[in-house]
Amino acid sequence: MLFPADAIARATHYLSLTSGGLGAYSDSRGLPGVRKEVAEFIERRDGYPSDPELIFLTDGASKGVMQILNCVIRGAGDGILVPVPQYPLYSATISLLGGSLVPYYLDESENWGLDVNNLRQSVAQARSQGISVRAMVIINPGNPTGQCLSEANLREILRFCYNEKLVLLGDEVYQQNIYQDERPFISSKKVLMDMGSPFSKEVQLVSFHTVSKGYWGECGQRGGYFEMTNFPPRVVEEIYKVASIALSPNVSAQIFMGLMVNPPKPGDISYDQFTRESKGILESLRRRANIMTDGFNSCKNVVCNFTEGAMYSFPQIRLPPGALQAAKQAGKVPDVFYCLKLLETTGISTVPGSGFGQKEGVFHLRTTILPAEEEMPEIMDSFKKFNDEFMTQYDNNFGYSRM
Amino acid sequence: MLFPADAIARATHYLSLTSGGLGAYSDSRGLPGVRKEVAEFIERRDGYPSDPELIFLTDGASKGVMQILNCVIRGAGDGILVPVPQYPLYSATISLLGGSLVPYYLDESENWGLDVNNLRQSVAQARSQGISVRAMVIINPGNPTGQCLSEANLREILRFCYNEKLVLLGDEVYQQNIYQDERPFISSKKVLMDMGSPFSKEVQLVSFHTVSKGYWGECGQRGGYFEMTNFPPRVVEEIYKVASIALSPNVSAQIFMGLMVNPPKPGDISYDQFTRESKGILESLRRRANIMTDGFNSCKNVVCNFTEGAMYSFPQIRLPPGALQAAKQAGKVPDVFYCLKLLETTGISTVPGSGFGQKEGVFHLRTTILPAEEEMPEIMDSFKKFNDEFMTQYDNNFGYSRM
Repeated sequence: MLFPADAIARATHYLSLTSGGLGAYSDSRGLPGVRKEVAEFIERRDGYPSDPELIFLTDGASKGVMQILNCVIRGAGDGILVPVPQYPLYSATISLLGGSLVPYYLDESENWGLDVNNLRQSVAQARSQGISVRAMVIINPGNPTGQCLSEANLREILRFCYNEKLVLLGDEVYQQNIYQDERPFISSKKVLMDMGSPFSKEVQLVSFHTVSKGYWGECGQRGGYFEMTNFPPRVVEEIYKVASIALSPNVSAQIFMGLMVNPPKPGDISYDQFTRESKGILESLRRRANIMTDGFNSCKNVVCNFTEGAMYSFPQIRLPPGALQAAKQAGKVPDVFYCLKLLETTGISTVPGSGFGQKEGVFHLRTTILPAEEEMPEIMDSFKKFNDEFMTQYDNNFGYSRM
Repeated sequence: MLFPADAIARATHYLSLTSGGLGAYSDSRGLPGVRKEVAEFIERRDGYPSDPELIFLTDGASKGVMQILNCVIRGAGDGILVPVPQYPLYSATISLLGGSLVPYYLDESENWGLDVNNLRQSVAQARSQGISVRAMVIINPGNPTGQCLSEANLREILRFCYNEKLVLLGDEVYQQNIYQDERPFISSKKVLMDMGSPFSKEVQLVSFHTVSKGYWGECGQRGGYFEMTNFPPRVVEEIYKVASIALSPNVSAQIFMGLMVNPPKPGDISYDQFTRESKGILESLRRRANIMTDGFNSCKNVVCNFTEGAMYSFPQIRLPPGALQAAKQAGKVPDVFYCLKLLETTGISTVPGSGFGQKEGVFHLRTTILPAEEEMPEIMDSFKKFNDEFMTQYDNNFGYSRM
């Protein structure tokens, strides 16, 4: 036998959910049977009911985010609250759709936490410019910042959305990627339901998830879903109508989504192997998060919050004036200058923090924690060697005399 | 062996084109190796060079059309020439993007041909309303109308686009579905290149294709491509940037696209089986096109152009005044009334012509030619029985007395 019996049974099951195999269109919201499995997954996770009719399967979470922003944004007068730093899907899509990005800054000194007072300021400032703020995005766990939002913080955010009548877009694609025990992932939906009436009945929430992350990482499949909470039926129908323009999400990824939300159970032939592999991957990622943030913090002029979740480290690089000057002479943004030097010297490829937004005059880079664990110490040694030499070379007092 | 050796070799080949398997993102334009195979397919088809750097793989052709329209439409002042009747992807997307649809009518009495004088009128009328007409859509072979555009007609269209500085969007997803020999499919790209300078160097053309049609019909995979001709590099770069927001099209469908454009060759183990199956499907579709249009034309008050290509018949249903009155009383659009009665009486599901646009007071329905060939005569008998009774029931003189 090429495959164990439970895998064959699963394949037969998913084929029976399609309308004649992987080659046929599905419902524009995705296969009803898979949406039911997603709803059951959400119910098990949160302890609250979930309705398959309010779940849409998408070609990856990004496409879902774009669909929802498309519904929210009517024109330049509509604003979306977006964290800074943030994964550029949001800034790019808001710009593409002709809306206005309303930034709120995450607090690096508070482990990239979210201060609701900052939110109030951002909204007040946007409104004073005539912008109608309609929605707020949170990325939890954070990309690129790696923080997990606490339950208390999520409550504050939901209360804020209630008061300000904002739709909350909860980007929760890294919910399986958690590398500490103090702050487990809690979904926005669960916190909202826990808060009870009037919040649980009124705050409009769209939650996103994907097959691209977690311990499976099947990003080439382009599979995602979103769940809508507290939207009137006529809005759901309109979103259905818009989804139907492109007929249906790809069917193979829908089945990946079913497999993801419905993993092998105790007693299944594949259960032990599944548990061993998935646990192994997550434990290794946890060790890598530690190696990487410890490594960054051992470097000169580098400080890095611990990667509590997601897949990234986002260290702050404190560039000495000499480096700023050299970057200027080279016609580069300072963090781009640093990242290019790092790439040229070591072969390590990172993304400059300016791609994600950062406070004026503060510089970062983003790197994934995904290199093979056994290569990680060597990579961090190579990084440290480069960084410390770079910092010495461009040090305040000696930089120029040595060039 | 479960699979023949050439199939295994193909699988190995396509895996080698991915960046580590189906589970990894590709380039946002699609895998370079598959784009190269698409370019080679276009070169073989047209006899002119094709550049893989100007080919984008997409999650189905619809997503490609939406991407391009998104680039063309800046606001309500931008108009897109669209055939009527037309597949509603275009009307829906233009409306979603806030542009203006500028209709041009296909001539049913000329086998749904396209009269360039009508185009001129449509553009002049739109311009007089302050609309800046920027692009034109052709669907060839037609959906829902089934016609194949002649080479002469394509030349006129391309010359018109040249004179009026319009981008031409050539929806050619049914290029393999041709059911007569008088008017084979010719691509817009080939006609444009045949026309020579200045046309071949200046007319901006985007051509669309898909894995969802032809003899393969793998629509659940969501695989498509578009090829851009005569666009400046900076425009291509912007389209690349926009495509990269959603990271990459799904990788399995990209491989389906490779398989489609690069079928088994003479000498390959699977060649005979491939030829037998693909030929068999296309020949059966041709017979079905004949059975269906002949069937419609044998019905009372029904006239139907022959389905030269694509997958649809679009008969005109000449509803007697009694039927119009009955529809009005039922609160239904007349063709919707007819199609619902057809569904209730026979179980045959069709789409009312009003979903595609039609001339005022003229009614159609669209049906696919895809039912199994052996069931086709029975279906057409059932249709004829319903239609002829319907027409008798609602006939001018006797309609009411008999109800």
